[in-house]
Amino acid sequence: MRVMGVDPGLTRCGIAIVQDAPSRKIELIQVQVARTLPNLPTAERLLLLERALISMVEEFEPEVMAIEQVFSQHNLKSVIGTAQAAGVAMLVAARSQLKVVTHTPTQIKAAVTGSGRADKKQVTQMVKKICNLQEAPKPADAADAIALGICHLWHNPKLAKAVS
Amino acid sequence: MRVMGVDPGLTRCGIAIVQDAPSRKIELIQVQVARTLPNLPTAERLLLLERALISMVEEFEPEVMAIEQVFSQHNLKSVIGTAQAAGVAMLVAARSQLKVVTHTPTQIKAAVTGSGRADKKQVTQMVKKICNLQEAPKPADAADAIALGICHLWHNPKLAKAVS
Repeated sequence: MRVMGVDPGLTRCGIAIVQDAPSRKIELIQVQVARTLPNLPTAERLLLLERALISMVEEFEPEVMAIEQVFSQHNLKSVIGTAQAAGVAMLVAARSQLKVVTHTPTQIKAAVTGSGRADKKQVTQMVKKICNLQEAPKPADAADAIALGICHLWHNPKLAKAVS
Repeated sequence: MRVMGVDPGLTRCGIAIVQDAPSRKIELIQVQVARTLPNLPTAERLLLLERALISMVEEFEPEVMAIEQVFSQHNLKSVIGTAQAAGVAMLVAARSQLKVVTHTPTQIKAAVTGSGRADKKQVTQMVKKICNLQEAPKPADAADAIALGICHLWHNPKLAKAVS
């Protein structure tokens, strides 16, 4: 299964395409961080983000979009922009009849590192290992988007067994 | 000038088209409340909302979209859905190269009733009077969307003078 992981954000939005490989490891197909300048109007930023998301969907044809869940309790200052970025991702998915799933930060960390309390460095290191990458993915938004894809693939009980 | 007022919401999104009339009153061209069922996936709800917004933009060709500003401090429970609905409206506007402006609830109430502390009933009554409607617009989301359009037109200092 091919999954698009989206770590939503207006300033930096991580977008990764991963799939389960025959070796039972995870194959990273593509990862990018879509950036928009904070001094642009929000409407323009959302439009740029939409284009980046659409182009990844069209090029790599994922079957599922896994988005990090946005909570209103955290980061009050940025929650609106993050929610809007996540909304645009959902909209792009729905338009392409892609299934949308959300995972919490704790689920993502736990799936990738074994601990829901892992820090960014641990997540990045495990992403590098799981995908058999020569270098650790940077910035954190890229690693998070890949981790989201991994989390979704490993949430599948059958696959989770196969990889463990 | 023809303005589209949007009172963003996932469950009910007020969408109004108003323009300044030669009489210096405000003419209500169209108003609707786009509704989506809470049991649908968010992605589907955003897609339905997008379609309603696009169809209003295409049919009535407004020059500006005036959206109620979303604050993270208020209604923590619904802020994410409201922010996403506002984001979809902005995206639709940007795609049609419509200018986007936001107004705060206080600005809207003050523009329509003269008091930033007016209640929903007062706003609805003033909207009815300003647009010379036979009946008060219902529900509140419809009245709020019209009030947004009025607020935007009356924020224009030249027009504001002309109508006062």
